[in-house]
Amino acid sequence: MPGNTIGQAFTLTSWGESHGTAIGGVLDGVPPGISLDIEKIQKALDRRKPGGPHGLTSPRQESDQIHILSGLYEGKTLGTPLSFLIYNTDQRSGDYDAFKNVYRPGHADYSYTMKYGHVDHRGSGRASARETAIRVAAGEIAKQILQSFFPTLQVTAAVIQLGSQKLNAPWLGHSYPENPLFCPEERTIQPWTSYLNDIRFQGRSVGALIEVHVKNMPAGLGEPVYDKLDADLAKALMSINAVKGVEIGDGFSCVNAENGYDELSAETPTKHLTNKAGGIVGGISTGQDIICRVALKPTSSTLQSRKALTKDEIPVDVSITGRHDPCVGIRAVPIVEGMVSLVIMDHFLRWQGQCGSKFRK
Amino acid sequence: MPGNTIGQAFTLTSWGESHGTAIGGVLDGVPPGISLDIEKIQKALDRRKPGGPHGLTSPRQESDQIHILSGLYEGKTLGTPLSFLIYNTDQRSGDYDAFKNVYRPGHADYSYTMKYGHVDHRGSGRASARETAIRVAAGEIAKQILQSFFPTLQVTAAVIQLGSQKLNAPWLGHSYPENPLFCPEERTIQPWTSYLNDIRFQGRSVGALIEVHVKNMPAGLGEPVYDKLDADLAKALMSINAVKGVEIGDGFSCVNAENGYDELSAETPTKHLTNKAGGIVGGISTGQDIICRVALKPTSSTLQSRKALTKDEIPVDVSITGRHDPCVGIRAVPIVEGMVSLVIMDHFLRWQGQCGSKFRK
Amino acid sequence: MPGNTIGQAFTLTSWGESHGTAIGGVLDGVPPGISLDIEKIQKALDRRKPGGPHGLTSPRQESDQIHILSGLYEGKTLGTPLSFLIYNTDQRSGDYDAFKNVYRPGHADYSYTMKYGHVDHRGSGRASARETAIRVAAGEIAKQILQSFFPTLQVTAAVIQLGSQKLNAPWLGHSYPENPLFCPEERTIQPWTSYLNDIRFQGRSVGALIEVHVKNMPAGLGEPVYDKLDADLAKALMSINAVKGVEIGDGFSCVNAENGYDELSAETPTKHLTNKAGGIVGGISTGQDIICRVALKPTSSTLQSRKALTKDEIPVDVSITGRHDPCVGIRAVPIVEGMVSLVIMDHFLRWQGQCGSKFRK
Amino acid sequence: MPGNTIGQAFTLTSWGESHGTAIGGVLDGVPPGISLDIEKIQKALDRRKPGGPHGLTSPRQESDQIHILSGLYEGKTLGTPLSFLIYNTDQRSGDYDAFKNVYRPGHADYSYTMKYGHVDHRGSGRASARETAIRVAAGEIAKQILQSFFPTLQVTAAVIQLGSQKLNAPWLGHSYPENPLFCPEERTIQPWTSYLNDIRFQGRSVGALIEVHVKNMPAGLGEPVYDKLDADLAKALMSINAVKGVEIGDGFSCVNAENGYDELSAETPTKHLTNKAGGIVGGISTGQDIICRVALKPTSSTLQSRKALTKDEIPVDVSITGRHDPCVGIRAVPIVEGMVSLVIMDHFLRWQGQCGSKFRK
Repeated sequence: MPGNTIGQAFTLTSWGESHGTAIGGVLDGVPPGISLDIEKIQKALDRRKPGGPHGLTSPRQESDQIHILSGLYEGKTLGTPLSFLIYNTDQRSGDYDAFKNVYRPGHADYSYTMKYGHVDHRGSGRASARETAIRVAAGEIAKQILQSFFPTLQVTAAVIQLGSQKLNAPWLGHSYPENPLFCPEERTIQPWTSYLNDIRFQGRSVGALIEVHVKNMPAGLGEPVYDKLDADLAKALMSINAVKGVEIGDGFSCVNAENGYDELSAETPTKHLTNKAGGIVGGISTGQDIICRVALKPTSSTLQSRKALTKDEIPVDVSITGRHDPCVGIRAVPIVEGMVSLVIMDHFLRWQGQCGSKFRK
Repeated sequence: MPGNTIGQAFTLTSWGESHGTAIGGVLDGVPPGISLDIEKIQKALDRRKPGGPHGLTSPRQESDQIHILSGLYEGKTLGTPLSFLIYNTDQRSGDYDAFKNVYRPGHADYSYTMKYGHVDHRGSGRASARETAIRVAAGEIAKQILQSFFPTLQVTAAVIQLGSQKLNAPWLGHSYPENPLFCPEERTIQPWTSYLNDIRFQGRSVGALIEVHVKNMPAGLGEPVYDKLDADLAKALMSINAVKGVEIGDGFSCVNAENGYDELSAETPTKHLTNKAGGIVGGISTGQDIICRVALKPTSSTLQSRKALTKDEIPVDVSITGRHDPCVGIRAVPIVEGMVSLVIMDHFLRWQGQCGSKFRK
Repeated sequence: MPGNTIGQAFTLTSWGESHGTAIGGVLDGVPPGISLDIEKIQKALDRRKPGGPHGLTSPRQESDQIHILSGLYEGKTLGTPLSFLIYNTDQRSGDYDAFKNVYRPGHADYSYTMKYGHVDHRGSGRASARETAIRVAAGEIAKQILQSFFPTLQVTAAVIQLGSQKLNAPWLGHSYPENPLFCPEERTIQPWTSYLNDIRFQGRSVGALIEVHVKNMPAGLGEPVYDKLDADLAKALMSINAVKGVEIGDGFSCVNAENGYDELSAETPTKHLTNKAGGIVGGISTGQDIICRVALKPTSSTLQSRKALTKDEIPVDVSITGRHDPCVGIRAVPIVEGMVSLVIMDHFLRWQGQCGSKFRK
Repeated sequence: MPGNTIGQAFTLTSWGESHGTAIGGVLDGVPPGISLDIEKIQKALDRRKPGGPHGLTSPRQESDQIHILSGLYEGKTLGTPLSFLIYNTDQRSGDYDAFKNVYRPGHADYSYTMKYGHVDHRGSGRASARETAIRVAAGEIAKQILQSFFPTLQVTAAVIQLGSQKLNAPWLGHSYPENPLFCPEERTIQPWTSYLNDIRFQGRSVGALIEVHVKNMPAGLGEPVYDKLDADLAKALMSINAVKGVEIGDGFSCVNAENGYDELSAETPTKHLTNKAGGIVGGISTGQDIICRVALKPTSSTLQSRKALTKDEIPVDVSITGRHDPCVGIRAVPIVEGMVSLVIMDHFLRWQGQCGSKFRK
């Protein structure tokens, strides 16, 4: 199976280059008879959209209007493939002519050429983060379907570190007022805004640390051995552009820790006293909150000059004058929520297929 | 597809409970006509085997003798499925009778019961790290096949942090003399041995940080978007028992970094001046070394008393008196090498199928 | 994996209801750098289009204009997913209001309702033969890619029996002048046209027998055991609407035959003296012509009155007054060619991945 | 995914060469907590076993004793992979030395060599019908699991034509007394026995036509478009050694028929008046009996001399003196039942995953 499909029982197949006609996705395995709220899908896409009100992220203007082409009838899913597309309206691909024969540092120009030979240099083609709009739309659909089965389930992500700037207190996964930085701590929004503006005006960029919590998670989802729930989450999150690390529960801090377990108790609703494991043991959910963190590297395209090579191996310096996003990580918050929702939805159907019979007594 | 198969073009299907008759694996998609060195496969298994010479890891005695049942003829692969098994010779499952109706902390007893209802309590059944022997054998086979195509390719892992103890200098991925701690720095073996013996005698356990390097990696492997090479590595590594975090290249340190890119130059063999990316950009290998790090949590089963629950939700305290492994992470070194080899082998065949034609000019 | 994707290494994912906005497909695993002839793809779609010049098949008017949305750049494949769609321009779904609550005989109304509960009654929704336009477009693309590797390979199908009417002589798989009945025997076109017109004016319908030949087929394609080349062809062909039987080589006549083998000889280019096997032995192609036959049932929707049931199980009689296709089987000729091309393309990439190394000596 | 796995939600992976140590299978996706009757599995294997009491089929003596190695605990399925193997006890591979460098007519020697280069000539290796023992064991397990959900479901196959010999009356799918010819008509067993003995003593072979019925089939199983239930059945059945044709319901006879539909009625339990469709419409089961027919070619290895080629393309004549099976088709009856059971089991889990929620109201 080629690499543009994710999931086993609930699958997303994605297509589209950054500067082609459109990008799109096909969801298959959709349970029938479920009402979808299209406005909410559009709203999820708007959250990811570059060029927020404060101009803190990429100034590219995209309308990102979703068009659902199949699988819905009279507002409800049919059980047939749900196909959707988003037109690429802001395709100023002429912007990229300068880079046509250049391998840019931090971009996939070199590795794509090694693989395919024939590549689309415009805005990185398929390697562009533009593809992540598909993940957000599909993820929101997955979340809506999940919530039709588990109405209290919540999937919420936030930026918990922006470059050198941390939160004042740990975020516990609760929802928070919308803000362009996806900062869950109200008093921190202003300092982070100033910090990021400084980074931006200096033509620099920084990374971000995102945390995601799934609350009211059903127990028993995940497959032992290879398709562990945490393994599939790691893959789904690592597949997001610019992600360089993924951890679950206590994550890397477990190396220099002791007692790497959560004691049990009948006194708590989830039967556990702590949640070092991040809600997954042996690859299967315990019913506690799922907690993951994801590290995103700084934007590669900055105003600074960088050493590059042409395809004929002539050294050139590249820098950009126009579009510049000081922290790509921020926009990844709805993408992270989307990928987590897709993975849980897939494992819910897998569980239901194998273990969820309503026939057996 | 249920969760006991990994890979798309080169697949490993694994089976077997810790205390059943045997465990085994089936490799499919094996290229034909390749000579396998069975002794080296056995040697790889011996490296993972618990109960090393210094008794630093689990005292369970397993012979772990591999039996290849199909797919080999006159020493060469046939191209048909290569099936192998390892008998469970040290099955003292009576040891586990005490835990028959107990959900132990840090073990998968609770989550497995939530999923399956009917579970094999003996030595954690399918959740046991015993399954990882299959990964080691299959990974060594994958590595041998890869090396028949790329003779200089090397996959080497090492423990770079043991609990609180770090190396004196960064390890650069070179091979090192065998030692029970998989410590790549000779002068550090002795202090780590003392440290771990202390941990062990105190009935405690610690975590480990493992790093893996792939040297002489071919460029162009990996799929864009979902099946990125780093995404598949993250999944394969996160699926190993006790792993709680995975990072590629600069990993989590990229959050508070700038210039998250590697400049290009025609002067170096790999065309890049640095390797912050860990050898993968846009999900596709650049031909530089692949570098990943994996965090493993401390063993859950220690001599200390822990709060548990019976299946009837009666609180009980559990501790073990017999077998106790002060750091499960150490034994993961050959497992990490195996999983990385499996992922690269799979992506090599996927690349060859789509892009590697010998017919086209 | 849900049921709207076919293939393993070269995959087609299809979406769209008969009377929704559009139908479409996504091809993944496309080898890069291959020139596609879009006009030929359009021409293949025109061959399938209902309402030929003589009005012999369904009068539905569809423009069936293909729009390629991704995966092509400067006329060549990128190696990324090739997405295409066809708008549903003739959606007079009001025609179907009469059947909104009726299970029609020979249509999937009843079985779809048993599966999904919530269904799209308009023109059978997903069960409509309209979906086969996707198979034709994707199949033509597969054929063009195959021919870039094997320039002499030919995939040709023809109607060899129309209701009670047979050809005068066996058709040997050669190409023939285009005609609305896909009849490979020139002198037979006129009698078949009269025959079918009679059937049509009487409001009746008949079945068809289609044969397909692959000439200059490469040897060695196919997987042993389950994914035999003939098994995958049987699936692909049986999945076409209205198909009720598939046979390879001598097919059903082998039951009352002897010597079910083809003797070998160095004297012939394909090393065999006969081709009873239809070009596949042990699931793997021999390099001889592949020969399959497919039986299609008569159209269910005729002018005759038929006993149906409403969803409340009230008996009703249904018949149609408008559109009526006296033989759906005819239009299946380009669909059969498409499905065969898709299967061979898939097995070519699978073979190339596992066995086709240009690295090994 | 390589070709030795069948199914999507309930998968069988098979391995083993005819004359290696053993053959085996791994079932994954097995629902947990289901009791298996091992004796019945053994009995199913015994039905397929060559060398019946009357010596009517191949005289090879195999014990075909099944060994279940995992996935069962205290007599019930765990939900983990169920691995089983059968040792090859009658491996007289010396019998095959004469054919070591020969491409035999009707065998896969030539096509395997074209694909793999390196092949196991002993008893056809992986191409041998010996592999079908795995299908029978796995199919019986699938049937037992299915019957734990649908206790009245029956899967029954029979030989309905043996060479030129037909039954006196149509067989309606009911069970029949066991006999070595799997002949469902008692008065016909004796004449068929004489007929086949004649064929055998003359050193000849004939084909067979097998029909299979599934009674008390649940409605709503199957996927639209590509993974139609009939398409998956066609693949599963065509993948059986020696099968050259598959048809569903009225099959090939529909070509020269009219009214290719089944009228509906509230008066019958299955809501249909006839069953021309063979229980599947639009790829989805209607709840009527599923009916398929399968054509098997005559054994290729007979006492007659046949023209073959050595690998150096020297003409040689081959014939066999020892083992000779006058009709391989007969033994396919339990294999056909097994494959049908596997396909239905897979589609049941797929249906349950997507459509079978016990959560939704």
